[in-house]
Amino acid sequence: MDRYLVISSDGHAGPPAPVYRDYLEERYKPAFDEYQEQVRQLLELSRAMRQNEEFVAKWERITGGDGGLTAAYDSDVRNRVLDEQGVAAEVLFPDADVLGTGRVSASPFGSGLNGGAGTEPELAMAGARAHNRWLADFCAQAPHRRIGVAVVPILHDVDAAVAEIRAAHGMGLRGVLIPTRWFDAPAYLDPRYEPVWAVCEELGMVLHTHSGAGPADYGLGPGMMAIYATEAYWWAARPLWVLIWSGVFERHPGLRYVIAENGAWWAPDILAKMDEKFVGGHNTEKMGKVFREAISMKPTEYFDRNCFLAASTPGVEDMERRHLVGVGNFLWGNDLPHPEGTFPYTRYWIRERFREVPVDEARRMLGETAADLYGVDRAALAPLVARIGPSLDEVHGDRPVTPAPA
Amino acid sequence: MDRYLVISSDGHAGPPAPVYRDYLEERYKPAFDEYQEQVRQLLELSRAMRQNEEFVAKWERITGGDGGLTAAYDSDVRNRVLDEQGVAAEVLFPDADVLGTGRVSASPFGSGLNGGAGTEPELAMAGARAHNRWLADFCAQAPHRRIGVAVVPILHDVDAAVAEIRAAHGMGLRGVLIPTRWFDAPAYLDPRYEPVWAVCEELGMVLHTHSGAGPADYGLGPGMMAIYATEAYWWAARPLWVLIWSGVFERHPGLRYVIAENGAWWAPDILAKMDEKFVGGHNTEKMGKVFREAISMKPTEYFDRNCFLAASTPGVEDMERRHLVGVGNFLWGNDLPHPEGTFPYTRYWIRERFREVPVDEARRMLGETAADLYGVDRAALAPLVARIGPSLDEVHGDRPVTPAPA
Repeated sequence: MDRYLVISSDGHAGPPAPVYRDYLEERYKPAFDEYQEQVRQLLELSRAMRQNEEFVAKWERITGGDGGLTAAYDSDVRNRVLDEQGVAAEVLFPDADVLGTGRVSASPFGSGLNGGAGTEPELAMAGARAHNRWLADFCAQAPHRRIGVAVVPILHDVDAAVAEIRAAHGMGLRGVLIPTRWFDAPAYLDPRYEPVWAVCEELGMVLHTHSGAGPADYGLGPGMMAIYATEAYWWAARPLWVLIWSGVFERHPGLRYVIAENGAWWAPDILAKMDEKFVGGHNTEKMGKVFREAISMKPTEYFDRNCFLAASTPGVEDMERRHLVGVGNFLWGNDLPHPEGTFPYTRYWIRERFREVPVDEARRMLGETAADLYGVDRAALAPLVARIGPSLDEVHGDRPVTPAPA
Repeated sequence: MDRYLVISSDGHAGPPAPVYRDYLEERYKPAFDEYQEQVRQLLELSRAMRQNEEFVAKWERITGGDGGLTAAYDSDVRNRVLDEQGVAAEVLFPDADVLGTGRVSASPFGSGLNGGAGTEPELAMAGARAHNRWLADFCAQAPHRRIGVAVVPILHDVDAAVAEIRAAHGMGLRGVLIPTRWFDAPAYLDPRYEPVWAVCEELGMVLHTHSGAGPADYGLGPGMMAIYATEAYWWAARPLWVLIWSGVFERHPGLRYVIAENGAWWAPDILAKMDEKFVGGHNTEKMGKVFREAISMKPTEYFDRNCFLAASTPGVEDMERRHLVGVGNFLWGNDLPHPEGTFPYTRYWIRERFREVPVDEARRMLGETAADLYGVDRAALAPLVARIGPSLDEVHGDRPVTPAPA
């Protein structure tokens, strides 16, 4: 095969609000109409406060006017865009809309990337069910190309969450997105979440967190958005060490966990420090055996076995550290249709980042590891890959085939 | 000079509770007696829960029985210990006692490393005043060797904090320790703290935060202490980007800020990411001009000019990144008398870490930068350095002079 199987480990999908409304159970529709009014106000505030008009104009120009959003819910458009970008399959998260361009996160009642924080628990779960039903239908329109991740707000009602994970599995979804932060709920070391880890392991549902949610404990002073952006990687990374140290992967050796859209550069240092503590470093010797309280192996051993970084749009510093992260734990992604992703220049960026990477490593990072992780049917995708997959020459050859971004 | 001027940028000092009691204003003594009862209970809890008895036994053996604590308040003992360790001068923080060895942080009413969190504001400030008065007296017993850092809980009453900073300066103290975390108070980007930054700049008082305070939002589940230890560096680093992005160093170009006992390995990555955002990286382009809201230079330029990492007991990974941090922004420290420091093997560890470091770099990191930062009188120290300072041969020679730790 002289072409790459490319699987984006980070795509976003979701329909406009009226479609979501149809997928909601009847009794939640009045609350949804009320909630959408809040969304409209948030949107106006967002436009007034932060919008980079120049960037939005450029973004709409290069994406043909819609900012890529039609691809977020129209199956044919999605497939056409993926073909152009050389992507055979993708993992689908919620919230294709983008606050920074004057749009707004969309999974009903904030049940998506925000994990239903700040919403009444019952509404958050109702919104999640609506999204998951829509997503299952969307995935069914191109079942080999679409790997659906169910949104499951686990912070409020663990039994309801477990039921929704079983339902999502029954509908063909292959992963679970839990809130990246636990806000005022107990943290993920709490035994109350045990049934969630257990059911994901049992059903082979891949557990995910996704970057986005930061705290607001620094208020609204000068530099606030810059502080948010600087810290975001850390808040999104935080569940990693909470899950490792609290023994979740010790008790559930078959559980697989993906941190999406959060780079990879930060992981080797933090994991090395964790190993140092586990083996008994000088700085923490006085703390005794607390590092062996819930685990029996080194933290990096759980990472290697159970954890994956879906490093969307990887930077040079992510790529340079791929051997420290583990090539087999590093998934490429394009974040379609978010403007911080590689769309509409994905072929260009794949070449930029992988040109000097050995072909066997590039194959794993661009798609093979994701294919194993999510049980992708390679045979079913083979004809598509033969037609649209980036060729070895396109990625590694002397001359670029695709032009650089304008 | 064939010897190094060694200045530890991280030492801890404080007397036993009865002495602190004498330094308190009369009206706070009843509250102090009550508070000490709580401390005793905390101590018992700490012993029961976490103590590593084996380590404590070893620690008491190698420190001659007192865990180094007599040096925390006895001037002659302190000088003798410093002489043995080859340290000419040191920066003095509070809380020489150590929770992990069954002792407990000591600055009255938790006014020390905890910044008075969880204490009534008036008591926190009264405790700080007592510590600062004691510290000024302790420094006066060896004025060229001791650089006192006043503890100033700034979270509650900014005017009182400013008054205490002026008082501390008047007593000869040369720096200010503010709480590392702001807990429920407004974060350090809030304009309310402006008078604190202004008075520190005006008086040349070096601003400090010190590692230690972590959040408790992950509760008490399995792995909790390991999670705390993994995250501690980040909480201690957090004020760095809050102060930079909110423009504190833009408005106060003369303010100097030290992050104590928090390593240095983490800084280059975070600062590089901040610069990337400032110059307009792809991932944050949609956010527009928020990265220039309060600053006019790249974040690393403020770091280079205003910030220092007092990397106590540096590890190999800290030393290897010294050029990325900036050799002139990297201060060595020994954390005396905490067991995670280099005491009683400081001479051994200086050789271990600096043997391969060029002499001019080692001079700056071991003492010269600190001497400039705190206005140390080199001439006054010269005879002492000639007697006790580690010689070039001791640090860089072929054969170790001091034996390895047992």
